Amino acid sequence: MDLDLAQLRALGAIAEAGTLDGAARALHLTPSAISQRLKALEATAGRVLLVRSKPVRLTPSGEAMVRLARQVDLLAGDTAALLGADDAPGRPPSLPLAVNADSLATWILPTLGPLASEICFDLRSDDESHTAELLRDGTVMAAVTTQADPVPGCSVIRLGSLRYRPVAAPTFVDRWFADGVTRAALAEAPLLIFDRKDTLQHRYLQRRVRTGAGQPLDPPIHAVPASSEFMAAVAAGFGWGLLPRQQSAELLARGELVEFDADRGIDVVLFWQQWKLRSPALDRVAAAVREGATRYLD
Amino acid sequence: MDLDLAQLRALGAIAEAGTLDGAARALHLTPSAISQRLKALEATAGRVLLVRSKPVRLTPSGEAMVRLARQVDLLAGDTAALLGADDAPGRPPSLPLAVNADSLATWILPTLGPLASEICFDLRSDDESHTAELLRDGTVMAAVTTQADPVPGCSVIRLGSLRYRPVAAPTFVDRWFADGVTRAALAEAPLLIFDRKDTLQHRYLQRRVRTGAGQPLDPPIHAVPASSEFMAAVAAGFGWGLLPRQQSAELLARGELVEFDADRGIDVVLFWQQWKLRSPALDRVAAAVREGATRYLD
Repeated sequence: MDLDLAQLRALGAIAEAGTLDGAARALHLTPSAISQRLKALEATAGRVLLVRSKPVRLTPSGEAMVRLARQVDLLAGDTAALLGADDAPGRPPSLPLAVNADSLATWILPTLGPLASEICFDLRSDDESHTAELLRDGTVMAAVTTQADPVPGCSVIRLGSLRYRPVAAPTFVDRWFADGVTRAALAEAPLLIFDRKDTLQHRYLQRRVRTGAGQPLDPPIHAVPASSEFMAAVAAGFGWGLLPRQQSAELLARGELVEFDADRGIDVVLFWQQWKLRSPALDRVAAAVREGATRYLD
Repeated sequence: MDLDLAQLRALGAIAEAGTLDGAARALHLTPSAISQRLKALEATAGRVLLVRSKPVRLTPSGEAMVRLARQVDLLAGDTAALLGADDAPGRPPSLPLAVNADSLATWILPTLGPLASEICFDLRSDDESHTAELLRDGTVMAAVTTQADPVPGCSVIRLGSLRYRPVAAPTFVDRWFADGVTRAALAEAPLLIFDRKDTLQHRYLQRRVRTGAGQPLDPPIHAVPASSEFMAAVAAGFGWGLLPRQQSAELLARGELVEFDADRGIDVVLFWQQWKLRSPALDRVAAAVREGATRYLD
């Protein structure tokens, strides 16, 4: 196949925007130019790449082509950066990364900060059930994730652990755990979860009371689906929750949070998954993430 | 129809969990008990409510029934609370609410805090394009949202505005805007967006340079899809961004952020949409939100 970069980029933009008009706006082109590039690319591929619904839907051939478009975009950005700003637009390459919420709230920003003037970070929330798909379809080129199984075409390394411990506001501990962290107290004390997929608090509960008798505990539950705001809600006394020590350290030191059961917690292992692709930008980010992990993770 | 509450609750749990096994775990029942309740409910309704795929998929009749199940659950929780803890489980009613990310990061937690011991807040991120659907299908009972058009069956009131102003780290302003906030500077200075749907920064750019000539600006862009972390990335010098004054006040006062173009900003109006449903729990939350809005919003 004799592929044309501008055509590939047009397809990538359509997949991103969901409509030809949106792609036209993103690339500063007319919708008709976008449409012509798409047709030319379909002629080259000999396949229909896109179902013209609203929003558009990629065919399996279209998905493969978008993955290619994103890989080519990264490599072209790298090359432009190598050639210097003289004849290239000099724009830093953009790197789409999935990052789990608690890493984003703790160690990822200080880790990526030193590279932020050379690489544009297009961060996505790592909804864990979704990360494999984001990697597979090329929406992200790498991920900081709890998923250890490598996505086909990706390499995986172990980064280290976030050390989650049960914490609460001091007044909350006085009210609910004055007689200790008993089964009866845990059955009544409100707790926080991040969202429906967050099982950490329930895993702690199960371990904590597994020697006890009776049916599973069913305490009141609040859901706060943002990492820093989750911690703020714990500190405000909505309920107890598990927080990584990397995140709670400052509020623990200031006495706004206390660990009420410090010996029992859950260590969550994080992994770095990335495309097997030689890209200077991706290599530099991978090196920074590995370095940051040794500094911030256990 | 002679509806059975336990059957309705089983359907709601299946819709929530996506599988019969998940619903069984959530309700502390056997999968077979869940399956029997579902069949009995389908017999009463005279309709297939659920396609038995993985995950399950609701039929249109099933969706209507789940909406009813959620409404009934809220009303039953209210009634149990009214009856007191003697013969009812005494569990506070659970209220699912959609909240836009910046409200969650600023005024919603202090507003809801005083009610947190009486009501379980099941907060969902308000992805704006999605909120109408969450309200329509009964996943949430109310929303703090930028969407002014009422969803069918919902009432809507105007809450007030978040006042977004362009901010950056002091060193960033020195580096990029030493000669003023010129078109040339805005074309090169990196900026932050929340995610692909966040158009605030680009709306500011368009207004700022609309008198200028030439093609649209195309500066480097970082995406940080979490509210507090967005602010942290701005303070760390990744780029400039628009932040609500309600959120940036503390870092502005500490000199970790500066407003570099304070006269130009964008006020984003927020609305409260809720089901037209007489529920004491929902009424109390609506009153608290209205009250919080007068205190925190403009």
